[in-house]
Amino acid sequence: MDAKAKVFQICKKAKDASRDFSVVSTEKKNALLRAIASALESDSDKIISANRKDLASARENGVPDHMLDRLMLNEARISGICDSLRALVLLTDPVGSGELFTRPNGLKIACTRVPLGVVAIIYEARPNVTVDAAALCLKTGNATVLRGGKEAANTNLCLIEIMRTCIENAGLCPDMLGFIGPELGYEGADALMQARGLVDVLIPRGSKRLISAVVEKSSVPVIETGAGNCHLYVDGSADLDMAVKVAINAKCSRPAVCNAIETMLVHASVAEDFLPKFASAVAQKHSLEIRGCEKTCAILKGISPATEEDFETEYDDYILAVKVVSSLDEAIAHINKYNTGHSEAIITNDRYAADRFKSLVDAAAVYVNASTRFTDGGEFGFGAEIGISTQKLHARGPMGLYALTTQKYIIEGNGQVR
Amino acid sequence: MDAKAKVFQICKKAKDASRDFSVVSTEKKNALLRAIASALESDSDKIISANRKDLASARENGVPDHMLDRLMLNEARISGICDSLRALVLLTDPVGSGELFTRPNGLKIACTRVPLGVVAIIYEARPNVTVDAAALCLKTGNATVLRGGKEAANTNLCLIEIMRTCIENAGLCPDMLGFIGPELGYEGADALMQARGLVDVLIPRGSKRLISAVVEKSSVPVIETGAGNCHLYVDGSADLDMAVKVAINAKCSRPAVCNAIETMLVHASVAEDFLPKFASAVAQKHSLEIRGCEKTCAILKGISPATEEDFETEYDDYILAVKVVSSLDEAIAHINKYNTGHSEAIITNDRYAADRFKSLVDAAAVYVNASTRFTDGGEFGFGAEIGISTQKLHARGPMGLYALTTQKYIIEGNGQVR
Repeated sequence: MDAKAKVFQICKKAKDASRDFSVVSTEKKNALLRAIASALESDSDKIISANRKDLASARENGVPDHMLDRLMLNEARISGICDSLRALVLLTDPVGSGELFTRPNGLKIACTRVPLGVVAIIYEARPNVTVDAAALCLKTGNATVLRGGKEAANTNLCLIEIMRTCIENAGLCPDMLGFIGPELGYEGADALMQARGLVDVLIPRGSKRLISAVVEKSSVPVIETGAGNCHLYVDGSADLDMAVKVAINAKCSRPAVCNAIETMLVHASVAEDFLPKFASAVAQKHSLEIRGCEKTCAILKGISPATEEDFETEYDDYILAVKVVSSLDEAIAHINKYNTGHSEAIITNDRYAADRFKSLVDAAAVYVNASTRFTDGGEFGFGAEIGISTQKLHARGPMGLYALTTQKYIIEGNGQVR
Repeated sequence: MDAKAKVFQICKKAKDASRDFSVVSTEKKNALLRAIASALESDSDKIISANRKDLASARENGVPDHMLDRLMLNEARISGICDSLRALVLLTDPVGSGELFTRPNGLKIACTRVPLGVVAIIYEARPNVTVDAAALCLKTGNATVLRGGKEAANTNLCLIEIMRTCIENAGLCPDMLGFIGPELGYEGADALMQARGLVDVLIPRGSKRLISAVVEKSSVPVIETGAGNCHLYVDGSADLDMAVKVAINAKCSRPAVCNAIETMLVHASVAEDFLPKFASAVAQKHSLEIRGCEKTCAILKGISPATEEDFETEYDDYILAVKVVSSLDEAIAHINKYNTGHSEAIITNDRYAADRFKSLVDAAAVYVNASTRFTDGGEFGFGAEIGISTQKLHARGPMGLYALTTQKYIIEGNGQVR
């Protein structure tokens, strides 16, 4: 059997298992999540030893340090994963909720939340995602097919085995948690993108390159997540101290994440005051490379010029592009040209500017006088997150449990005809 | 300029116009809808004469009668279109509605409905869709790009011109209603499917072939609509008189529409009673061709046998496939194998069977003791409908105004950082 046939078989089994699982009670799903948490804790030695093998090969293959860090599991991290599982138990299950209305002809129509069916996730070498993603899908009654980065192969296989055993012990079909092993290579990933009719939604989690490849190739419906070319605009009416504080936070608190800013736009009327203030404040704590437009370079001597490419780039690093703009509308136009629909912020004391920015900037999250770093399921109070959607269909912004469900109209009558 | 460049230019202009239009008040949008209704009425002679040209060429080109009927506009039909426009005025505009919550750190988060941006629709030679679709998009603050069937070219151009003039008279940019003319051919349609970033969603309306082609080729997010391989299952506990009445309605009241049934499943325990009863009742009013499984053929002598292909086919005609099943679960499995996720019905007096059918059948609308023909925005009380979604993401079932919007998180703070 070739890679494609194997993947389709895994997806078909998940699809079949998803039917019965879709009607399992919240109580039973929560018990399963608790059982998985306990099993991961008691098997933590086994997990850590599988993870050590992965780390050793990754080091041999020259995987960079920051990726090794994402790959690494230890007691504390496993315990963190189990805490998340137990927190997930406490969240409300959206499945079965909905609205009921009666039509004049007596038809009772219930618009009910139901699981999507089979959720597939393609992600990189982050073993915590293996458990997190499976758990979010479990909680919402979905079957899951996971395809993780090859560097985490041993760890993932160990985690999947533990979870499948728990599923089986709960009297459910373990095929509802499918895993596309690294032996199936890129063909395995490609097959998953072609499993239309077997997979209900495919969520890529990881780099921009991974996400673009999935969007390009997939015939399965995709939810795009994560690409974040985010901006902060310092308006002419801004409280400049607030602007400095928010800009430093939005850029430097964690530059590698998608909700960090990449470009700062500054109104010409405050640029000469603000830019030196910002540059000296940020230099006290961080080594930030600033690349500026012509006007910025004239104010902050010695920095490199920003090119068109800079404005298009999600640096994910301690680099910030800066552009001086002559109006609010120029800032909005720049953002709508270059942004990826993630998070955008304005610092202003002008009610009109705030309203115009909120209305016209096209993004999942638009901030007035706060840092873009808050775009996150936890920070929004959703408790858990499968990703941050940068698309407009289905889900936009941090996706909680609700985004893993769809609706079904259930209509009861007593023989009505039209 | 080639077809692709022309289409991209139309889409780009629509995208630019969509920004300002997204914040236009409901009052102003309603006034525009009323103005369009009046203009269509006063220009009805012009519209009808353009339509006559289309009808004449269509007849010359051998377009079949049922398509000529869909293409035809007369005073009564124009007046019907204008009535729909005025009914649309009365519906609640979802834009601007939403939820507001405050986080412990003081951030105020509003999750607000906003327009999708640019909605493109590819459809066949039905000029009423030109006005309906544009109006639904207008009401929800979206720009629209339409690509209608070439047979309706003159009618569409006339309708578009009237609507664009009304938009301009309202002080808005007419480019928010774009039209891909028939001179751009299939290349024009293909270009629209590739306008990722310029078009926010593409909705194909029409035949299964059109919809499949769009789903296959499009890199723009698509909402699939309309394909309806629907079933009626007559359970062993069914009230057989009700079953006869509902089956005849679901098949014969309008066979060409997507919510009509194509296959009827009958429990073995009632097949011998029910099938002759149904066959003789339906024969009194309709000339229905029944194609049956082996057991059905043994009960209803002289009918043709149903093949695998029959169970896969959306006949859209006075043809019905019939299969006798030995259990509820066999019926559910058959439906989940062959259906297109549209509308499915069970006739039963057994609470357990009803619940199991409702839970396990995977479709947008699942009926107990009622006809599938009710799956419709008007029948559900939504007042207007852009199509019936058979997909699970974003919208499922009849899509009203809400489905033409997305959400935007608007977060207000006073300098919060993370």
